[in-house]
Amino acid sequence: MIKAGIIGATGYAGAELVRLLTYHPQTEIHAISSVSFEGEKFCEIYPAFRKICENRLVSADEVIDTCEVVFAALPHGLSQQIAVKCYEKGVLFIDIGADFRLDSADEYKKWYGKEYIAPELHKKAVYGLPEIFRKDIKNATIIANPGCYPTSAVLGLYPVLHEGLIETSGIIIDSKSGATGAGRKLTQTTHFTDLNETFSPYNIGKHRHTPEIEQTLTKIAKEPIAVTFTPHLLPINRGIVSTIYVKTKTTYTELRTAYEKAYSNEKFVRFLPEGITACLGNVRNSNYCDISIHLDEHTQTLIIVSAIDNMVKGAAGQAIQNMNIALGIDETLGLDIIPLNF
Amino acid sequence: MIKAGIIGATGYAGAELVRLLTYHPQTEIHAISSVSFEGEKFCEIYPAFRKICENRLVSADEVIDTCEVVFAALPHGLSQQIAVKCYEKGVLFIDIGADFRLDSADEYKKWYGKEYIAPELHKKAVYGLPEIFRKDIKNATIIANPGCYPTSAVLGLYPVLHEGLIETSGIIIDSKSGATGAGRKLTQTTHFTDLNETFSPYNIGKHRHTPEIEQTLTKIAKEPIAVTFTPHLLPINRGIVSTIYVKTKTTYTELRTAYEKAYSNEKFVRFLPEGITACLGNVRNSNYCDISIHLDEHTQTLIIVSAIDNMVKGAAGQAIQNMNIALGIDETLGLDIIPLNF
Amino acid sequence: MIKAGIIGATGYAGAELVRLLTYHPQTEIHAISSVSFEGEKFCEIYPAFRKICENRLVSADEVIDTCEVVFAALPHGLSQQIAVKCYEKGVLFIDIGADFRLDSADEYKKWYGKEYIAPELHKKAVYGLPEIFRKDIKNATIIANPGCYPTSAVLGLYPVLHEGLIETSGIIIDSKSGATGAGRKLTQTTHFTDLNETFSPYNIGKHRHTPEIEQTLTKIAKEPIAVTFTPHLLPINRGIVSTIYVKTKTTYTELRTAYEKAYSNEKFVRFLPEGITACLGNVRNSNYCDISIHLDEHTQTLIIVSAIDNMVKGAAGQAIQNMNIALGIDETLGLDIIPLNF
Amino acid sequence: MIKAGIIGATGYAGAELVRLLTYHPQTEIHAISSVSFEGEKFCEIYPAFRKICENRLVSADEVIDTCEVVFAALPHGLSQQIAVKCYEKGVLFIDIGADFRLDSADEYKKWYGKEYIAPELHKKAVYGLPEIFRKDIKNATIIANPGCYPTSAVLGLYPVLHEGLIETSGIIIDSKSGATGAGRKLTQTTHFTDLNETFSPYNIGKHRHTPEIEQTLTKIAKEPIAVTFTPHLLPINRGIVSTIYVKTKTTYTELRTAYEKAYSNEKFVRFLPEGITACLGNVRNSNYCDISIHLDEHTQTLIIVSAIDNMVKGAAGQAIQNMNIALGIDETLGLDIIPLNF
Repeated sequence: MIKAGIIGATGYAGAELVRLLTYHPQTEIHAISSVSFEGEKFCEIYPAFRKICENRLVSADEVIDTCEVVFAALPHGLSQQIAVKCYEKGVLFIDIGADFRLDSADEYKKWYGKEYIAPELHKKAVYGLPEIFRKDIKNATIIANPGCYPTSAVLGLYPVLHEGLIETSGIIIDSKSGATGAGRKLTQTTHFTDLNETFSPYNIGKHRHTPEIEQTLTKIAKEPIAVTFTPHLLPINRGIVSTIYVKTKTTYTELRTAYEKAYSNEKFVRFLPEGITACLGNVRNSNYCDISIHLDEHTQTLIIVSAIDNMVKGAAGQAIQNMNIALGIDETLGLDIIPLNF
Repeated sequence: MIKAGIIGATGYAGAELVRLLTYHPQTEIHAISSVSFEGEKFCEIYPAFRKICENRLVSADEVIDTCEVVFAALPHGLSQQIAVKCYEKGVLFIDIGADFRLDSADEYKKWYGKEYIAPELHKKAVYGLPEIFRKDIKNATIIANPGCYPTSAVLGLYPVLHEGLIETSGIIIDSKSGATGAGRKLTQTTHFTDLNETFSPYNIGKHRHTPEIEQTLTKIAKEPIAVTFTPHLLPINRGIVSTIYVKTKTTYTELRTAYEKAYSNEKFVRFLPEGITACLGNVRNSNYCDISIHLDEHTQTLIIVSAIDNMVKGAAGQAIQNMNIALGIDETLGLDIIPLNF
Repeated sequence: MIKAGIIGATGYAGAELVRLLTYHPQTEIHAISSVSFEGEKFCEIYPAFRKICENRLVSADEVIDTCEVVFAALPHGLSQQIAVKCYEKGVLFIDIGADFRLDSADEYKKWYGKEYIAPELHKKAVYGLPEIFRKDIKNATIIANPGCYPTSAVLGLYPVLHEGLIETSGIIIDSKSGATGAGRKLTQTTHFTDLNETFSPYNIGKHRHTPEIEQTLTKIAKEPIAVTFTPHLLPINRGIVSTIYVKTKTTYTELRTAYEKAYSNEKFVRFLPEGITACLGNVRNSNYCDISIHLDEHTQTLIIVSAIDNMVKGAAGQAIQNMNIALGIDETLGLDIIPLNF
Repeated sequence: MIKAGIIGATGYAGAELVRLLTYHPQTEIHAISSVSFEGEKFCEIYPAFRKICENRLVSADEVIDTCEVVFAALPHGLSQQIAVKCYEKGVLFIDIGADFRLDSADEYKKWYGKEYIAPELHKKAVYGLPEIFRKDIKNATIIANPGCYPTSAVLGLYPVLHEGLIETSGIIIDSKSGATGAGRKLTQTTHFTDLNETFSPYNIGKHRHTPEIEQTLTKIAKEPIAVTFTPHLLPINRGIVSTIYVKTKTTYTELRTAYEKAYSNEKFVRFLPEGITACLGNVRNSNYCDISIHLDEHTQTLIIVSAIDNMVKGAAGQAIQNMNIALGIDETLGLDIIPLNF
């Protein structure tokens, strides 16, 4: 059994890792840490896990010292030191946070307000979007797990951008996320009565996932890509739907061919048949990304709908997928959780 | 007291009219009809109205024969004959449905699959979006109450389109509506467990509100406008948020000036201060349309957020606003309902 | 116009008072206060009120000095000093909080952990449940507005307890409340993702509304009453349903007669016809209490269902009803808000 | 691999069986049937299952002819003929419906309005509540899977009733269920806007689960038990919380001992520590039943809180647990699904 550790196990992404790793047939949750709850049992914080995960929360150092794979699910800025220690010990490090996603220290400084403390390590970090960068992940020692919005947006755009079937300017990404995306921290915005039965966009034009999306799309298109990205908060727990608008001059058939080529062998991306629309309800609690495309001929606009569970494919599930690849085991292990119909 | 009648009073728009007209100080709900429930009391269908509206449902003809103002909230195709009868009797007719919204019989045929049975009347019908067409409404005898999506989209776009501050091509309208928009009729889509905790777009590129939006924007811009319009269904009861994307070359300040000019004297449109984002929760249960604008300078895209209650400003409230204007009484009468905070 | 003031206007009960008082035709919201937001505009805290209530939040003293009626919606323990000041100035004081509800200083100490600082004033305070204590309220200078759970439970039990038609021991009150009942303060329990899609009881056997319910039932029954009261938290915004179980030996007809006698002249209590069950959806956003009764003959148990909007009849609406009575004006003024169907 | 079949696979209980059986390591979903959708693929009805269950829906007879275990999830009255056929073929039959739950043909007639067509078979049927009747299930050929409400209520009451620690009269069961309990069939009650943000009891004193609860409690107590049972509909998808009230004369410690004795070796019942309250959120999507007890000493009332996922422990999960027992394999196989925290 692979000894897995989670640093920051009591945030939502960390807790979801606990849940999913429990399903993994070759992994054992060996050590988990939390600054806020060190010394307590995980199942005292999350009583759903009573009799399932009775682990006690330890220190981050203990996790690093005793595990073969370390996941960190921490506020930005805190993963870098963890990464340094893991790297020195030769422990595979997978960061659910944002610290290793951006190539440029300047961009990181601009969007997150902090410095890169170990620039050498950043060069070694691999961006863990398996369907696009699988080859790089195989040899990785530090993996930057993509953000939830970038996962949904980039998987939606990849085939047509890679094949050059769309205009590279004027890409619009209108994304809607469930409240788990905002985390476990109490805020007025995520107070029940303030969020229930309402809906609105937030951080318009300044969400931190914007540079991450642009960086990845730029690599795919091999030219600089700027996007307009607007996140919204949905009054539900889980899931992201991105509705993406691009200009195209090709036919619906050719567009479909690009998606089929890209994803027909991918277990976790389901490119939907003509006439079917991707829906959050069909990917909930699973590692699937469902994608549908729709051509509005009267404006020659391609509308791409991409749906994921933000906590699974958008966080913990994809992290496990990355671990599987990096360790050379079956990529799908522990991830055959079935979507909830209802 | 003005004798008001409602034909189709047991659908959601009809029932909302009953609710709002009860607040109106100069109107009496004189007669209401329903094909499905004729003979029953309204409050047996909607028990919330016990001791509030004890009216019994009668026939459509009885409504027309006894009222001074007739509202129809019917499936498309059924309002035209009502309109003919009202017109002959000199009764003000306000159609919450779609039968009188489109100028072109061909477009109506194309989108709704039916013929115009009284083309002369269609020429007399006025499109009842008060903030833009108030002058026409004053003398109207037949008023086509706008669709819910068109109300939110057109109010959002009007100032900058009217002032020529945006590019007229490439307009994208990404709208999200609560489930009352889908009506009282039972469908699998609006079955509780099928809608709760999920989210998706529907009718992409083929929603019937598309030609209505384009027709109105074309009048405002004085040139043909085509839009990409994508509706989504939110797992909440009420409200629409439209997130609208347009290209602009002007400054944020000039854009704000256009909105202030258009709406500073409008009671029911609240153009929000810089830094504030329109939110459905702030207009719920009211006749307000809240609008905020956001300039994404790195792509020169203007993002307009427009929020309404689809049942009030998007249906029954606006219908009453139209009635008030057409009858020459205070436009805001009966409409000072206050948004629910929670 | 009566000059009304609200101390603690930015909590949920206070904000609901702002909303409802705006509808009142003889009242003006003259001054409102908040410790947390003094100096800010109310509509900056609750943007739904933009252009509706532009009042700036002042100090509690300013409210007391300038108003004819003062409502306090404060955490327990803080209302007593306000009451003293109001009493000295001859200002009608209505306390939405718990400080004046219990007759016994010992009980208050036991359940709330504080002392009565002005015992004389507590003797003058009247318990403001109009349907039962209307006469006392007419001459009141200090009114203790009942708790939300007690309002629903006591109105449900009053007729049969008053008429001696049930056994006075073994009364069970199983109540379910929406999240506004827990207030605006951030807690893990009311964090969106922690409450959404879940449900549970809380404070079993030790909720502070228990002594208040028992005190009032004891007065009605004229003998000591102990109840088993279990509150639950519903993942919705508004409303309380209490399902009440009592033993009876009388007939369904006689039971109905007692309710009809008690409530047939009450505007705000709707005793429902046989076969209809009280439902939260029919009282939402209104001052109504809907009550239905059901006799389970095979166990001779009477099941009483009582539904209110916890923020209206359970808080702000009832407070206004009390104000109207105390001031000798029409009891229903400002309270003809209609339930939301959807 | 055991060949499993599901008759009525497109209702909610059937679809949940498809989901859970997919996890089972020793079972293969061999054949599934549906009257409404025969010939279509299951994943066309439930698109969440695309690439997971591509089975085509066949006839009930084909299921019976080709499988070793047959589950039926049908409206009442339809399972009896299926049972006859299975019995003749020697196929293990597990009925999720109500046809084999009641011992008495008269009671069945009274509550369900139908006759027993194969009384001999009814005598062979075993009531499949494993924690109480495990021994009987081991040799069963026909298993009546308990109703969802009875599962939560009986597991909550069993220890204290079995040990004689409570009064056997005056038991009150106040249950609250999510909307999946009402099934996939469209009704006005489960129309999204009619259920969302509301709450009420239904079928008071006449729900069909009443005789089933009483029959089982009578067996446990070895004397006739009558209960007052009130179900309520929660505006959420999954789960049941039963709040149960009984009179007791013993101590809290002795009560706890009874529960510990009954359940300490049960994997799927978690008796919670003192001070913790059972909560629906902790059992969602799992086969656990969480139980907490609370003694209200001032009325000597024991309050038992029992929480299950109505679709898992209350239906499909328990059916699989029964299958495992009847087939003599590990009782927990396929059921180690972990509760969703959020």
